[in-house]
Amino acid sequence: MLEELKISVCQANLMLPKHELVTFTWGNVSGIDREKGLMVIKPSGVEYEGMTADDMVVVELKTGKRVEGKWKPSSDTDTHLALYRAFPGLGGIVHTHSRWATTFAQAGRPIPALGTTHGDYFYGDIPCTRRMTADEIGGEYELETGNVIIETFNGIDPMSIPGVLVHSHGPFAWGGTPMEAVHNAVVMEEVAFMDWHAMVLESTLGQPASGRMQQELLDKHYLRKHGANAYYGQQ
Amino acid sequence: MLEELKISVCQANLMLPKHELVTFTWGNVSGIDREKGLMVIKPSGVEYEGMTADDMVVVELKTGKRVEGKWKPSSDTDTHLALYRAFPGLGGIVHTHSRWATTFAQAGRPIPALGTTHGDYFYGDIPCTRRMTADEIGGEYELETGNVIIETFNGIDPMSIPGVLVHSHGPFAWGGTPMEAVHNAVVMEEVAFMDWHAMVLESTLGQPASGRMQQELLDKHYLRKHGANAYYGQQ
Amino acid sequence: MLEELKISVCQANLMLPKHELVTFTWGNVSGIDREKGLMVIKPSGVEYEGMTADDMVVVELKTGKRVEGKWKPSSDTDTHLALYRAFPGLGGIVHTHSRWATTFAQAGRPIPALGTTHGDYFYGDIPCTRRMTADEIGGEYELETGNVIIETFNGIDPMSIPGVLVHSHGPFAWGGTPMEAVHNAVVMEEVAFMDWHAMVLESTLGQPASGRMQQELLDKHYLRKHGANAYYGQQ
Amino acid sequence: MLEELKISVCQANLMLPKHELVTFTWGNVSGIDREKGLMVIKPSGVEYEGMTADDMVVVELKTGKRVEGKWKPSSDTDTHLALYRAFPGLGGIVHTHSRWATTFAQAGRPIPALGTTHGDYFYGDIPCTRRMTADEIGGEYELETGNVIIETFNGIDPMSIPGVLVHSHGPFAWGGTPMEAVHNAVVMEEVAFMDWHAMVLESTLGQPASGRMQQELLDKHYLRKHGANAYYGQQ
Repeated sequence: MLEELKISVCQANLMLPKHELVTFTWGNVSGIDREKGLMVIKPSGVEYEGMTADDMVVVELKTGKRVEGKWKPSSDTDTHLALYRAFPGLGGIVHTHSRWATTFAQAGRPIPALGTTHGDYFYGDIPCTRRMTADEIGGEYELETGNVIIETFNGIDPMSIPGVLVHSHGPFAWGGTPMEAVHNAVVMEEVAFMDWHAMVLESTLGQPASGRMQQELLDKHYLRKHGANAYYGQQ
Repeated sequence: MLEELKISVCQANLMLPKHELVTFTWGNVSGIDREKGLMVIKPSGVEYEGMTADDMVVVELKTGKRVEGKWKPSSDTDTHLALYRAFPGLGGIVHTHSRWATTFAQAGRPIPALGTTHGDYFYGDIPCTRRMTADEIGGEYELETGNVIIETFNGIDPMSIPGVLVHSHGPFAWGGTPMEAVHNAVVMEEVAFMDWHAMVLESTLGQPASGRMQQELLDKHYLRKHGANAYYGQQ
Repeated sequence: MLEELKISVCQANLMLPKHELVTFTWGNVSGIDREKGLMVIKPSGVEYEGMTADDMVVVELKTGKRVEGKWKPSSDTDTHLALYRAFPGLGGIVHTHSRWATTFAQAGRPIPALGTTHGDYFYGDIPCTRRMTADEIGGEYELETGNVIIETFNGIDPMSIPGVLVHSHGPFAWGGTPMEAVHNAVVMEEVAFMDWHAMVLESTLGQPASGRMQQELLDKHYLRKHGANAYYGQQ
Repeated sequence: MLEELKISVCQANLMLPKHELVTFTWGNVSGIDREKGLMVIKPSGVEYEGMTADDMVVVELKTGKRVEGKWKPSSDTDTHLALYRAFPGLGGIVHTHSRWATTFAQAGRPIPALGTTHGDYFYGDIPCTRRMTADEIGGEYELETGNVIIETFNGIDPMSIPGVLVHSHGPFAWGGTPMEAVHNAVVMEEVAFMDWHAMVLESTLGQPASGRMQQELLDKHYLRKHGANAYYGQQ
């Protein structure tokens, strides 16, 4: 069942080592079939090398119950499910411990919109969740991780800011498809790198930070690639 | 038409991923035939992998009108055209979001002439444009991006400082040919790396910055590679 | 003798260049056969390229005497032996001068537990030894290096914090097998990278460090991968 | 003539791109035949790819006159010659603009002896020359670059500190053979990386720098690899 989705989820997972977003097995991508109410996700703790579509695991969106697959699903499965339930536009989700985004997560800071690379994909700062409470951590931890992300997007459209940092943990990114989710994770890593260095450079020069990009510039770049009036690419 | 130029523009574009100056499709190189008044440029949003000379797009220097090519030209086409019109010595232009140069662009700072690597190619600081106004951004944005670069070079010879940072955006570099433009973009990335680290090191040591290289040293290095008395290489 | 162990020690050594933990010959991995009281270790100053199990050296755990092998054992042999004698759970040990962990060792600072990547493998800060005394350095230096590590783990379970920084020198890591030791060395390098950048970012922003991760979060991540109630992976 | 030396100089030059010490043609290695009074060096501005021993240039140690070779020798030839004349122990010299060492050169700072990686190869800080005067730059610049290095080693044994930073320029390293010179250049790059990060980390923590490694530790590491009592490796 879901052969095509399993193939696309597997391919998206294999992009993670290719883009150097993961060490060992520290990352997972999922995809969803909204009509059937089923999610396909990477198995837990399995190596990328040699992984095929057959290794993917199918679970029910509503219950989290495994309905197909020879492996246990990713330990982050409940976080993925919570996000799919809350954000109906999501077709794919990725979680990694990629170096630059995780740096910001560990510092508990958002990735600010400092340049057009950011504005081409993220329509504003990439937020960082609050710390989780002892109860949340001691309870259904992976589900609560999803909940604290959803809380963070109160008032923010997840389709225009397709990613988040979980405090002291690392990034999640998403998109209309599994591959688009990975694409956004690569962009997040790239802007985290450039923001980190721009912020340290400014601090080094002993001058006040020049601050975020102008709202007009952010509007211009985001909207020339997204929405009704987009004109970037061959569209 | 322009088969040779299309090949050289395509080859120069393919150097961008090879030198790790681009992620995804975030970069473009163009070249010009001054006699015919035609510019050749990469198509918009097309992958580097598998790209051939046939994918290049030909547009008129004067009007920006596409005269050949199966794709839409790069969304940055009007910026390239503005620079070719204003700077008659340019034979090739490259734009990227390369990590180190973009870091300086996001901080809104020039790349200072701190060492001989810089002096071998750039005869002074690599400037950063001012922020663009809301009117410029809301108007013919890509053309205005060219105009703010031209304004920045008021009193500077673009052939002796073959590159610039666009504020909150990223670098443009140029040269006598498309390949030379890419060469200069690689150098800019390299000196941005070394300047960033030298500046942070000095700040870390709590001492005043040692400042730019001596003018005599800059003269020496630039002039031993450029102009009538050059003696570097096999010339 | 010990053919299987020699193969696994050799394979673990060959992982060091693959994971970019070593330059030239600056690293070594050992393994132990507790029943026979014998340690297998890389030879001293021999290149990784072309190395085979036959190049490994066998020494006695109790005396350090070489009992097989055509080469002299690693100059760090006595440090490895001291650790195996003091910590009975160790099945493999690795020493490198990997860039990020060595940075912390040179600064004489522990690698703090700032995020879940750390908590998945190390149940607390990775400590840094005190400086060695002139007597220790002038005496049996490599043995004393082991002793100062053992002193540092007074009150710490080496199996829950499987690594250490030797002051002004570099990291040692260990595990139940030679390959697991290398795995932990890779993790240490990764968290050293992310901690370094998180700490500099926080300092740059002129705000007090957000501090270590919550104890509850550290417990959660360490214990979901280790011990009786682990549920990560396919176990 | 000098076929063997030309081969070893060519091989050492080809190690530069392999160890990522050079961009484009920014580096050169030379070797010397002391008996014949002849130096072999890379040609000026020639690509590494496809370079063979036949491309090497032979010049007289005493006069700098080219006695064999189809190309002009490296523009840094006179600096190499000055060092060979002043330091009789040198058998090979390398010059690059490698990123981390050049960072220190641009900041005008020595690379301090902070750890055992440094002590294994350099018996003390790697010094940085003073700025050159206008007269030196305007005169025989490349020869004067050699002279300012020699002045810097007044009272220092160049065989125990086999490298230097030229202010606002980049590193030179040397050794008994061309390959050993390249080896030392790789080490210098490695310790520059680790020192830079250790120094910034300490500054970030708002604490006084922990300072250099103990003299005893430096003695121990340098002398266990060099001199009469060395015991590292298979010697």
